[in-house]
Amino acid sequence: MVPNLVTALTGPINELEQRLLESMPAIERWFRLEWMEHTPTFYCSVDLRNAGYKLAPVATDLFPAGFNHLTPQMLPLAVQAAMAAIEKICPEAKNLLLVPCAHCDSASYLEHLQRLVQVFTQAGLNVRLGSADPDLDAPQTLRSATGEALVIEPLQRHRTRLGLKDFDPCTILLNDDLRAGVPRVLQNLYEQYLLPPLHASWATRRKSHHFHSYEEVAKKFAKLMGMDPWLINPMSAHCGQVEAGSDAGLECVRSHCEALLARQRRKFKEYGIAERPFVVVKADAGGMGAGVLTVRDVRELDAARLQRALARPPGQEPGVSEVIIQEGVPTCERIDEAMAEPVVCTIDRYVVGGYYRVLAGRASDESLQAPETRYVSLDFAESPMLPARGARPGASAPNRFYMYGVIGRLAMLAAAYELEATDPEAEDYD
Amino acid sequence: MVPNLVTALTGPINELEQRLLESMPAIERWFRLEWMEHTPTFYCSVDLRNAGYKLAPVATDLFPAGFNHLTPQMLPLAVQAAMAAIEKICPEAKNLLLVPCAHCDSASYLEHLQRLVQVFTQAGLNVRLGSADPDLDAPQTLRSATGEALVIEPLQRHRTRLGLKDFDPCTILLNDDLRAGVPRVLQNLYEQYLLPPLHASWATRRKSHHFHSYEEVAKKFAKLMGMDPWLINPMSAHCGQVEAGSDAGLECVRSHCEALLARQRRKFKEYGIAERPFVVVKADAGGMGAGVLTVRDVRELDAARLQRALARPPGQEPGVSEVIIQEGVPTCERIDEAMAEPVVCTIDRYVVGGYYRVLAGRASDESLQAPETRYVSLDFAESPMLPARGARPGASAPNRFYMYGVIGRLAMLAAAYELEATDPEAEDYD
Repeated sequence: MVPNLVTALTGPINELEQRLLESMPAIERWFRLEWMEHTPTFYCSVDLRNAGYKLAPVATDLFPAGFNHLTPQMLPLAVQAAMAAIEKICPEAKNLLLVPCAHCDSASYLEHLQRLVQVFTQAGLNVRLGSADPDLDAPQTLRSATGEALVIEPLQRHRTRLGLKDFDPCTILLNDDLRAGVPRVLQNLYEQYLLPPLHASWATRRKSHHFHSYEEVAKKFAKLMGMDPWLINPMSAHCGQVEAGSDAGLECVRSHCEALLARQRRKFKEYGIAERPFVVVKADAGGMGAGVLTVRDVRELDAARLQRALARPPGQEPGVSEVIIQEGVPTCERIDEAMAEPVVCTIDRYVVGGYYRVLAGRASDESLQAPETRYVSLDFAESPMLPARGARPGASAPNRFYMYGVIGRLAMLAAAYELEATDPEAEDYD
Repeated sequence: MVPNLVTALTGPINELEQRLLESMPAIERWFRLEWMEHTPTFYCSVDLRNAGYKLAPVATDLFPAGFNHLTPQMLPLAVQAAMAAIEKICPEAKNLLLVPCAHCDSASYLEHLQRLVQVFTQAGLNVRLGSADPDLDAPQTLRSATGEALVIEPLQRHRTRLGLKDFDPCTILLNDDLRAGVPRVLQNLYEQYLLPPLHASWATRRKSHHFHSYEEVAKKFAKLMGMDPWLINPMSAHCGQVEAGSDAGLECVRSHCEALLARQRRKFKEYGIAERPFVVVKADAGGMGAGVLTVRDVRELDAARLQRALARPPGQEPGVSEVIIQEGVPTCERIDEAMAEPVVCTIDRYVVGGYYRVLAGRASDESLQAPETRYVSLDFAESPMLPARGARPGASAPNRFYMYGVIGRLAMLAAAYELEATDPEAEDYD
């Protein structure tokens, strides 16, 4: 399928795009200098929202699950980036143990796993899959929609090392966000590289930490570019105690909503944006399942609505107690009338491709996280892959994608800052 | 233009392709370990010949000039590889000075230069072009066939540093093979990175050194693969004193031709190859212009023929005195009935693409280095870019290209060995 990208790209002309293209050498050098100080996340996918008036990351996934949506044409980039990543971490590595998501068994996820196996095999590793599921006592063969087999084997822990039967890996690549907690078999592994590290999992990670780091990164980058960081930064706030029935919690959420709406109104006035501001309230700990509450007027906000929105699905008690309140960023991109949000995928410091999440029949301020979401590869088959610095903003798919790649990498860099700040072992190295 | 690659790929099934694909993780790991010990050439292009019974490099160009033949789809790979290269050499670099070939002014070469500028700009560098031509005293604007402008400025030497007016680069990228000698302006630069180093230029480089290193690399690789190195190695020999009228020189060439033809006959018998062996005799110093002499029977070889073949064009006296005698490798690949030879391009340790040199009306044992040569991108738009490990050998363009990429990288690794062995400053670091 060749997506009708043109539709998605005829949004309002974006001054940001032009500025980023003109500053490309300075931007790339700035990233190079940042990577001298900070370690990129092993892999990552960043959901973006292009509001026309601003472009901001809305979620930074350190256990990406959509690599099957990348076009085959982009895959050599992923292989090359994986080679660069492996070379730095464990150049003598023969074996890579991939631990897939325990609760993901969709056809799409199996294709994603196959894609990961393909990329890391071609980067020069023997890849095998291991499950932490204690009920799995023998290798299990799963078949994708295309009929290809994936074998998942039981993990074997030998004192300080983790592996499979007759398989001792140098690196263990986690593709499970561990939202339900860190299984014992993955704890206290000091002889092997476990990537991403455990504190990147949703067992401990908090969105508010990430967006705090992202704000820092966005300010640095905006200073380099001589621009207002708000153009790329979704403002946010955090409430730590929002238990069911807590008046103080409701008050915290309400006051932050009010403040964020007021700040947005000022920005809209400053830029002459004729939109109605909104904020979203969501669980600060990650993982889907918890709802997202959209607030346009704090008078709509009451304890019942808040608890209903943040209640976890049955079996995932207790409910949410920490929330993040964030400036709502509507999406102005469309593919065939349907709302589209770009997703940028990275391996090591490199953008290896992207895709659109597309959902018909949704309003521009709603979440696209729903089972009916379909995915469209960002396919540049019809156009030269590289940005054309002279082209009119919005007219060139690669130009638009360069901008997405920059903001995606800012979010990934923010994750690097975040993981440094939250590293439980950081003090050991001071 | 979409080349009819299928035609080029329906040669005899190549066992080598299958073996390389099956061993992909081991091969990539082997390269990773080699790059821990050796420094890849900054960029490179390798001409290959696929004889059906063997696949061998026939020329390793450390000043490649055909990047314009890479498909636009492959360019992000080149940008990513350039980022990796710059990051290692000079991560804080802002500026790159590109010194183009002084005697190359074809439309194709200008497109190649534009491509290089594009790749390194997008990798995050301000790129400007400088000429060592002493007659150039003001910036000169050249226009490519597509109307794009390239400005070439006079080089400025300030004591130990080389630059342009108001332009002080960290790295100087040479794209001139300096066959006519090293201009003074490029000598004794110790504060900046000059890449490739001067001893990679044809002012001093010798093909025989390269193929000596390649033989070493091919043997190591063949040992890893448990195969006969002859399948990837063109046998060669060297004569150092072949001045016009020298009987000893003619005798040296003749005896090596005889020996190589005999060794080929034994190999053909061993593998049941129904071909007539031949050898080629060419100047050991590089640069086009000098001829190539094909010998099938040493009785054909006399002093007059040898001198005629090796005479330099007028103005490039003196004539050749050192020659390399090499096993002839015919090409069995065809695109639309025309002979085709694959060329693999690398930046840093990465294969960034390739193309076919195609010439109709040539015999399979002749050189394709001629003005009428046309170039066809290796375009994989119709097929998944990544090798399919299960596919029938020869049936998959990406599979065939993986094999080309491996042999291309072996030749590039050989160039790394060669440059270490011939480094005039190596003893300083002992």
